Amino acid sequence: MVEIRHATLITNNDRDEVIRDATIQVKDGKIAYAGQGKAAPEFAPERVIDAHGNIIMPGFVNMHTHVPMNLFRSYADDLDLMTWLNTRIFPAEDKLTEESAYWASMAAMCELSAAGVIAFNEMYFFVDSIARAAQQSGLRGVLSRAVVTPAPGVGERMLEESKELFEKYNGKGRLKVFLSPHAQYTVNNGMLEQIAEAAKTLGTGVHMHVSETRGEHETCLKEQGMTPIELCQKVGLLDVPFYAAHCVWIGEHDMELMAEYNATVLSCPKSNLKLASGIAPLTEMMQKGVRVTLGTDGAASNNKLSMWEEMTYASFLQKGTTYDPKTMPAAQTLKLATRYGAEALGLNSGVVEAGKNADLVMVNTNGVRYTPDYDEISLAVYAGSDADVCMTMVGGDIIYEDGKFAFADLDEVKMKLAEYAESMKKI
Amino acid sequence: MVEIRHATLITNNDRDEVIRDATIQVKDGKIAYAGQGKAAPEFAPERVIDAHGNIIMPGFVNMHTHVPMNLFRSYADDLDLMTWLNTRIFPAEDKLTEESAYWASMAAMCELSAAGVIAFNEMYFFVDSIARAAQQSGLRGVLSRAVVTPAPGVGERMLEESKELFEKYNGKGRLKVFLSPHAQYTVNNGMLEQIAEAAKTLGTGVHMHVSETRGEHETCLKEQGMTPIELCQKVGLLDVPFYAAHCVWIGEHDMELMAEYNATVLSCPKSNLKLASGIAPLTEMMQKGVRVTLGTDGAASNNKLSMWEEMTYASFLQKGTTYDPKTMPAAQTLKLATRYGAEALGLNSGVVEAGKNADLVMVNTNGVRYTPDYDEISLAVYAGSDADVCMTMVGGDIIYEDGKFAFADLDEVKMKLAEYAESMKKI
Repeated sequence: MVEIRHATLITNNDRDEVIRDATIQVKDGKIAYAGQGKAAPEFAPERVIDAHGNIIMPGFVNMHTHVPMNLFRSYADDLDLMTWLNTRIFPAEDKLTEESAYWASMAAMCELSAAGVIAFNEMYFFVDSIARAAQQSGLRGVLSRAVVTPAPGVGERMLEESKELFEKYNGKGRLKVFLSPHAQYTVNNGMLEQIAEAAKTLGTGVHMHVSETRGEHETCLKEQGMTPIELCQKVGLLDVPFYAAHCVWIGEHDMELMAEYNATVLSCPKSNLKLASGIAPLTEMMQKGVRVTLGTDGAASNNKLSMWEEMTYASFLQKGTTYDPKTMPAAQTLKLATRYGAEALGLNSGVVEAGKNADLVMVNTNGVRYTPDYDEISLAVYAGSDADVCMTMVGGDIIYEDGKFAFADLDEVKMKLAEYAESMKKI
Repeated sequence: MVEIRHATLITNNDRDEVIRDATIQVKDGKIAYAGQGKAAPEFAPERVIDAHGNIIMPGFVNMHTHVPMNLFRSYADDLDLMTWLNTRIFPAEDKLTEESAYWASMAAMCELSAAGVIAFNEMYFFVDSIARAAQQSGLRGVLSRAVVTPAPGVGERMLEESKELFEKYNGKGRLKVFLSPHAQYTVNNGMLEQIAEAAKTLGTGVHMHVSETRGEHETCLKEQGMTPIELCQKVGLLDVPFYAAHCVWIGEHDMELMAEYNATVLSCPKSNLKLASGIAPLTEMMQKGVRVTLGTDGAASNNKLSMWEEMTYASFLQKGTTYDPKTMPAAQTLKLATRYGAEALGLNSGVVEAGKNADLVMVNTNGVRYTPDYDEISLAVYAGSDADVCMTMVGGDIIYEDGKFAFADLDEVKMKLAEYAESMKKI
């Protein structure tokens, strides 16, 4: 039972309503009231938060993460993809352990929650470590074990593991579990089919890297006579809720298929630039009816888990490459980073209104960038930044507030991470 | 006399040297020593700052600003350029006064210094107001009065005013004054010639918008038979130190001319995207020997004065559009945002070494993003952000520290700005 008073509320509803001097009442993890302060009903909160004009808005849904990669930030930059993977990232990943993956995931939980994220959609290995960190943090997490088929039997074993993880964590607390073929170029067609079947049986979704690089997209077209998305349709992956990360190089027919099957694009604009993959045509996708959402990718290829930055990169890249400044306006961009992701993952959040989960952030507006205040949504999206987040609430629980985490001691997390980093330096 | 101890020093020198446990001694506005703490000479500082492992690096040089436009942030977004200018920005600028321009400039001084900027290269009108704010702040500023020729006599009057401003402010304190033809499409050829002559006589530089949009570049080519840069050469503008903002659409010959004449590109990658102008080919420019520096443009077209963000936009856009992740690595990107701008403006800073001006920032590394620390330059450039700046020093004076400004009361600045914004809301 928390009541937030005197907030500037960005509801993120269909009318993009902004309510000044708003009150938000939180009860049993849900929003009981969100609207004009003077019209708020009687309420007996355990805690009253005076927002003093700060912005309350829905928390971000980070749709594509590899959270243990927080151990690899600044480990290898400015390299071509194959050098980066073969000489730096793969050897480093070989040295990961359950414990180091856990502490790196904890660092990511700190980074995400302090930057206003309320849910993340994850693909990696060491899923038990990630689950442990996620559960401890209070964040909503959709976990998945990446499956690859480098040799006979490997993919089958990883799929079995994925099913066990589903039984163990799906629906437990704030966790869900998806299946995850890593990508078309790392998973054979037979395994893609098996994963589609398994997802149907379990009634869950599939999270996959799709057409991230031009080479990958064109090689598939050449070798299989169809694009990765067309292949996904053929093997049945589009019959289940399908979450396609990157989609930088998808074509018109791919977009039509994704719209038809209600698949979701998880765009990571910063990572796509940094790894020199390109710029995804988000405006065209949305014109064709595809649901587009945003993610950060891992800390080694970004190098921040900042949904604020993904918002401006996404919007500005579309404006700058379509030569149309009207495309992806602020209010729509905010929805890509919040509500559309929540809807895609079946979370009851993304809009601040009665009945929704209390998955909120408070944005401190004391900084110089929040005056004048002609347009609060523009300020939040284009002038806001991670550091302005002063409170993150998930399901009514305040997990981050004014530099402090309810679930972690940041100094301890940093110390542990620094210890594990020492072994990486020796590679 | 300040001594900073136990810093992680990013020197920004030719060898991209990073020194841990460094000491920096500041005397008479200059760096007296910067190096290993244990090798530091005897020094009797008035103040000792224990950096506790925080990063010390050169401050940013923001090469293209319109600081009074801080009054227009969030005033008009997501509009096409002509609607934006004609229905929103021009009417708003008509309502500016000396006082509102001063307070808006003060807001920009706060924003710049809190985000680690030590110098800015400005073009606007109300130059007296800007000078007043700049002098009060302690920032280094290069000011210029934009000249346009909409009707006979107007440009001449503005050029006279520019010359008076030169006499009044050039070399006074930390100020310089350049001349500024606004752009080729707003200034006739005769006035461009007069400005070139005047700059030669005064011995100063020229700051101009060049080839920002495709339309502007191609219209010049069609109407004058040459590109804006070729025209600038013809009228003598390249004979003086020439600072060309944007240069999104310049071609190969333009780049060769700029390299030959040692002209400087002031690239504003975020503004160019947001206003849908395009992406400047910085990698190609640098390959052709052109000096490239970075700026933010005004707050209405960005919407932040953040050199941290310009760094990652600049680097990542080049990687993502050349499909080469090795282009514009972190250390080079840092130089575009600091040293190259300082060199272009003739400031004795941009490298932290003995003899240079003490124009420094301290970056707080307590946040989760600064661990592990495999590569401090990568961390600073790719994972750092404005909010990590905990101290900005210009000429040995600490003008910003831990949320406080030596020169302004932020609450007062915000209150004044909010008052002036009320009249803008009525347009």
